[in-house]
Amino acid sequence: MQNEALATIAVLGGTGKEGGGLALRWAHKGHKVIIGSRTAERAQEAADAMNATLGGGSVVGAANPDAAAQADIIVLAVPYAAQQSTVKDVADALAGKILIDVTVPLVPPKVSRVQLPDGGSAVEAVQKMLGEGVRVVSAFQNISAHHLTKLDEEIECDVLVCADDSEAADQVVALAQEIGLRAWNAGPLCNSVVAEGLTSVLIALNRRYKVPGSGIRITGV
Amino acid sequence: MQNEALATIAVLGGTGKEGGGLALRWAHKGHKVIIGSRTAERAQEAADAMNATLGGGSVVGAANPDAAAQADIIVLAVPYAAQQSTVKDVADALAGKILIDVTVPLVPPKVSRVQLPDGGSAVEAVQKMLGEGVRVVSAFQNISAHHLTKLDEEIECDVLVCADDSEAADQVVALAQEIGLRAWNAGPLCNSVVAEGLTSVLIALNRRYKVPGSGIRITGV
Repeated sequence: MQNEALATIAVLGGTGKEGGGLALRWAHKGHKVIIGSRTAERAQEAADAMNATLGGGSVVGAANPDAAAQADIIVLAVPYAAQQSTVKDVADALAGKILIDVTVPLVPPKVSRVQLPDGGSAVEAVQKMLGEGVRVVSAFQNISAHHLTKLDEEIECDVLVCADDSEAADQVVALAQEIGLRAWNAGPLCNSVVAEGLTSVLIALNRRYKVPGSGIRITGV
Repeated sequence: MQNEALATIAVLGGTGKEGGGLALRWAHKGHKVIIGSRTAERAQEAADAMNATLGGGSVVGAANPDAAAQADIIVLAVPYAAQQSTVKDVADALAGKILIDVTVPLVPPKVSRVQLPDGGSAVEAVQKMLGEGVRVVSAFQNISAHHLTKLDEEIECDVLVCADDSEAADQVVALAQEIGLRAWNAGPLCNSVVAEGLTSVLIALNRRYKVPGSGIRITGV
């Protein structure tokens, strides 16, 4: 089993804000991070920018399938519309690995309304596509990208981590804790409905109460 | 429009723990509270016990339809299996009023798994049954009954309030604040998916981390 403290992490969609923020924080903590994108060129540009921010990091870029093939842990941080096609593109490289799905099934323009896919959460469809040979874990949907990129900032939002493989969930909890996040093993993958829907609730709260980035804390634990 | 500060509140299922806890707190704050149950006798017993706890309250009991008819605001706090039949029993008494639905669609025995009804939240089915003439509001799903009954205890869990009628949601936010709860207008009724599912997530956290009553706080607001 991989020790997550030494794992190589590929962030598919690492050119985007959320994936980029997570990649930056893991690279900052010494992980080997591979930015994945549809083209290797865009991925390398994002990696170069990240290394500049870090003052000499070792982040590299690759096309999504190559990034997934070279990593121990793969993070899926693409827009909802690209979720399933990206998973198909990299499926061959995922066997036996952990896939962390960050996808929030927002349906523009009404992003402050919870509009989950038929049958529940978006991540369950991914687990079904991939079968039991891939350990799919849902996490990080509620963390503001804005806060992630400020490396010294304490992030006032907990991470709900859901997976049918509870040990995989615990590994992702540890990966979240490494980058300064409070995280919880929140049960089976079907419980991801709450994390996926919560993003729309937080957007609704941001608009209603005119704040930039509401979040949640778990209490009593 | 009713001033919620003076409203008479009927709590259907007020003989249960969650409804009883809410009823006790509102009665303690001076509201006229009517406990509703399937039989007037059981309701009156619960009301008498509540008055004894309060040291002379004015809580009364009635069969559910009578309780609903006499109240300005009706709280639905029955088990999920009785949700729709109870609504049918009292529907005639709800026109123009606020119905606060506290129902959590737990599916025993796996109550730590989110298992929402087809089509989304349980409360949306109630709004559809009743039509637009009743202002249905979802709230209080995540508040531990155990904490509610300890009148002096600060409850470390926020209330997510969802309704298609945003002004009705604001009234329920105020009713929650009256009894010492932090509460938020969390958007349209479909967003109740999160509050309803969150109860199973909190049960999962209670089991996993061996705590009696986890909750959530909204941050950054």
